[in-house]
Amino acid sequence: MSMPPSSRTTVRRKPQRARYARADIEAIVDGTLICHVAFADGAGVHSLPMACWRVGDDLYVHAASNSRIAATLLAGECCVSIALVDGLVLARAAFHHSMNFRSVVVYGQFVAVDDPETAKTVYEAFVDHVSPGRSVQVRGPSPAEISGTRLLRLPLAEAAAKVRAGGVEDSRDDMGWPVWAGVVPVAMRGLPPLPDPGSAAYPQPVLPAMCVETTVE
Amino acid sequence: MSMPPSSRTTVRRKPQRARYARADIEAIVDGTLICHVAFADGAGVHSLPMACWRVGDDLYVHAASNSRIAATLLAGECCVSIALVDGLVLARAAFHHSMNFRSVVVYGQFVAVDDPETAKTVYEAFVDHVSPGRSVQVRGPSPAEISGTRLLRLPLAEAAAKVRAGGVEDSRDDMGWPVWAGVVPVAMRGLPPLPDPGSAAYPQPVLPAMCVETTVE
Repeated sequence: MSMPPSSRTTVRRKPQRARYARADIEAIVDGTLICHVAFADGAGVHSLPMACWRVGDDLYVHAASNSRIAATLLAGECCVSIALVDGLVLARAAFHHSMNFRSVVVYGQFVAVDDPETAKTVYEAFVDHVSPGRSVQVRGPSPAEISGTRLLRLPLAEAAAKVRAGGVEDSRDDMGWPVWAGVVPVAMRGLPPLPDPGSAAYPQPVLPAMCVETTVE
Repeated sequence: MSMPPSSRTTVRRKPQRARYARADIEAIVDGTLICHVAFADGAGVHSLPMACWRVGDDLYVHAASNSRIAATLLAGECCVSIALVDGLVLARAAFHHSMNFRSVVVYGQFVAVDDPETAKTVYEAFVDHVSPGRSVQVRGPSPAEISGTRLLRLPLAEAAAKVRAGGVEDSRDDMGWPVWAGVVPVAMRGLPPLPDPGSAAYPQPVLPAMCVETTVE
């Protein structure tokens, strides 16, 4: 299923890199732990990194119930962006250097999820996004913990992705330049876990998908 | 040297995580390949991922000379954010899960760098940011390539960093919960390089610092 782009999500620069298919957008959202939320208030435009995750057709972030950011986001439109770097594209010419990346931009307005049962389910998905299968192993949220946190939902409705993949694109004239050229794939990886005292005997946590998947070039 | 925070860069939520030292801010900018640029125009607020790098006291991005984004950024204020995830903080309680991260937020207005010689030097630093030592190995930019690209400079003047490091912070009541708890450090890593045909015999490129440094928890 594809999302018809709005005037704001239509990719104009290098439109061949645009991806409007819902599956592409969802895969990129699922591939990140962090999004950047842009919004405006009386002091100007702001950009704030926030942890994020997806359930169904929506992107979620959370904040303390009494925080300014929760109130501000609920009061107006924002734009959320996500970018994942997949590779360093090292060309023979400085000018043709590039990066392989997957990015998503979403426009809209966050709405609050105030039903505690719904919030609990969405928070479980957050824990499982960070470590698959973990939500049933940990001590679940208490009513006070849920009410102290504001869960915010943004529909992935006005959204588009942009993807650069593949190899170097040097000019024919530069092909004889005596330097290594190609792509260095990069990816987020888990390093050896550091257990908290007293818990090391339990099975180690499962890494999130973006730390274990093979990068396909 | 420390940067006195403005009202916009003062960290209010968890102020113990704020870092206003220039060295801390510069290290985080140097640790990324991508920033997210928030700006507003007649269509609302936008957030755009852009490649970035630092030279001295300034952050740089670039765009095609004839692009809308270059004109828009030069016309008004913006906010740039960077976020690096250093670890998954897996607590015994769902509520106490967290991430170790380093982030920077910068406010200001980009200015154009139109002097070709200055631009050439800054672009060399860009190539070396992606692969140290590479700028002297590749075919340097031609005058036409430099004039076809707009180099944009943002002073790291109104900027602040926020850092979460360390281990889990479970409540005393949860310490007996039967689950692995601790930190899983994560980091960007280089995977085996994919050489372009005809270049594989040359020495392999040097990885950028953020792909080789040890994550300190």
